[in-house]
Amino acid sequence: MEQDKEKEGIENINCQLSIVNCQLNKNVYPIFDKMMGRSDKEQLLGQRSVMVWFTGLSGSGKSTLAIALERELHQRGYLCRILDGDNIRSGINNNLGFSAEDRIENIRRIAEVGKLFIDSGIVTLAAFISPNDYIREMAGTIIGKEDFLEVYVSTPIEECERRDVKGLYAKARRGEIRDFTGVSAPFEAPVHPALTLDTSLLTLEESVQKLLNLIIPKIEIN
Amino acid sequence: MEQDKEKEGIENINCQLSIVNCQLNKNVYPIFDKMMGRSDKEQLLGQRSVMVWFTGLSGSGKSTLAIALERELHQRGYLCRILDGDNIRSGINNNLGFSAEDRIENIRRIAEVGKLFIDSGIVTLAAFISPNDYIREMAGTIIGKEDFLEVYVSTPIEECERRDVKGLYAKARRGEIRDFTGVSAPFEAPVHPALTLDTSLLTLEESVQKLLNLIIPKIEIN
Repeated sequence: MEQDKEKEGIENINCQLSIVNCQLNKNVYPIFDKMMGRSDKEQLLGQRSVMVWFTGLSGSGKSTLAIALERELHQRGYLCRILDGDNIRSGINNNLGFSAEDRIENIRRIAEVGKLFIDSGIVTLAAFISPNDYIREMAGTIIGKEDFLEVYVSTPIEECERRDVKGLYAKARRGEIRDFTGVSAPFEAPVHPALTLDTSLLTLEESVQKLLNLIIPKIEIN
Repeated sequence: MEQDKEKEGIENINCQLSIVNCQLNKNVYPIFDKMMGRSDKEQLLGQRSVMVWFTGLSGSGKSTLAIALERELHQRGYLCRILDGDNIRSGINNNLGFSAEDRIENIRRIAEVGKLFIDSGIVTLAAFISPNDYIREMAGTIIGKEDFLEVYVSTPIEECERRDVKGLYAKARRGEIRDFTGVSAPFEAPVHPALTLDTSLLTLEESVQKLLNLIIPKIEIN
C-alpha cells in the first residue's frame, strides 16, 4: 500500500515534469506522442471490435450473410466494415491474380487491412472462400486469435452449384477456370469454427439470429 | 403532385412485392442485398469522413501533427484513423522495399486502405513523405478529389535535419541511404495544398488549431 502510494507519487511528479517540459519546447515534440488506442476508440463507439471471418465455397452465402448481419448490427448502433471480393479485388488487391502466391498475398493483405479496422474499434466482417487451414491460420495470426471468429458457411456444393450466381461453376465445369474450389481444387473445412451455418437448411433470418447470438455478447459494452 | 403520388404508390407496391418474394424464398437471397453505405455510417457516427493527407520531408512533423489532431478530434467525439509508416510499413506493406515501383505501390495501397476507411465514415489522417505530384495525384484519384485534403508540412530541411529523430539524415549524408528525400532525391512541394504548416515557425497548438479550423466544418453534421 505504502509502496503503491509512493510509486503513484513519483509517477505524478514525472507526469508534471513532462508537461512542464512540453510547455518549454512547444514546437518540438508533444508529450502525447502516441496515437489513440483501440480501447479509446471502442469507448468512443460504445462497442468492442472483433473479426468475423466467413469461410466457405463460392455461392455458399458468405457475402449475403455478412451483408444481412451488418444491417442488423448497424440498426443496433454498431459500426461495421465488410471486406469482400467486391471491394478488395477491385481496390487494394487489383494487382493480384489467382496463382498460389497471389491467393496467399490476397488473404494476407485482407487480414492486415482487417487488423487496422479492428484496431479502430470496428466490427469487421470478412467474406472470402479462404479454402484451407494454412490460409485461415495466417489470417488469424495476423489479426490475433482472440479477435478472430471463424464462421464456416457449410452449404453443400450441390446447392452452391445450383445457385451459381456468378456462373463460375458452369465455367469451372467446362474447364474455363483452373483450380476452382470445390470443383478442381479442394476445400478444407475448418476444424473448430465458432459457428457453422448451412444456408440450404437455415433461412437467412435463422442464420443471422445465430450470428447475432454469437457476436453481440462479444461486442457489447455494458 | 398527382404523378409523384402515383409513382410513390407504384414504388410501395414494388417494395411489398419484393418483401413477399423474399418471404417465399427465405433461404435464397435477401431483398437488402447491398452493404450499408457511407452515408449510413456517417449518420451512425454523427460525422462526415474526409482524408487529410500530410506531405512533407522526413522529420517535418507529419505524424506528430496527425497524432495531435487525432487526439483533439477524438476528444470532440470524432472517430479517426491514422495511417503512417509505423502501422503500414510493418503490416500491409511489409513486403515492399524502397525501389521506385515499390514506393508507388506503397502509396497506392495506402490510398486504397484509406478509401475503405473513408467509405466507413471515418476521418482518416495519412502521414507519408509522398514526395511528388505524381504520387499525390494518384492517391487523390483513388480516394476521390472531393474527399482529399492535402496538408503540406513545409518545415525547412535545415530544421528537419537538426531534429533527425530517426538518425536518417545522418545516414543519408554518409551515403548509407540512397534516394533520400531532400538529400539525394527531390521533394516537389504541392502546388495548391489546402493548408501549409511550417512547424519551425508555428507551435504544435497553433498548427493543430489551423487544422481544426479547416477540418471541423467539413466533418461536422449539424
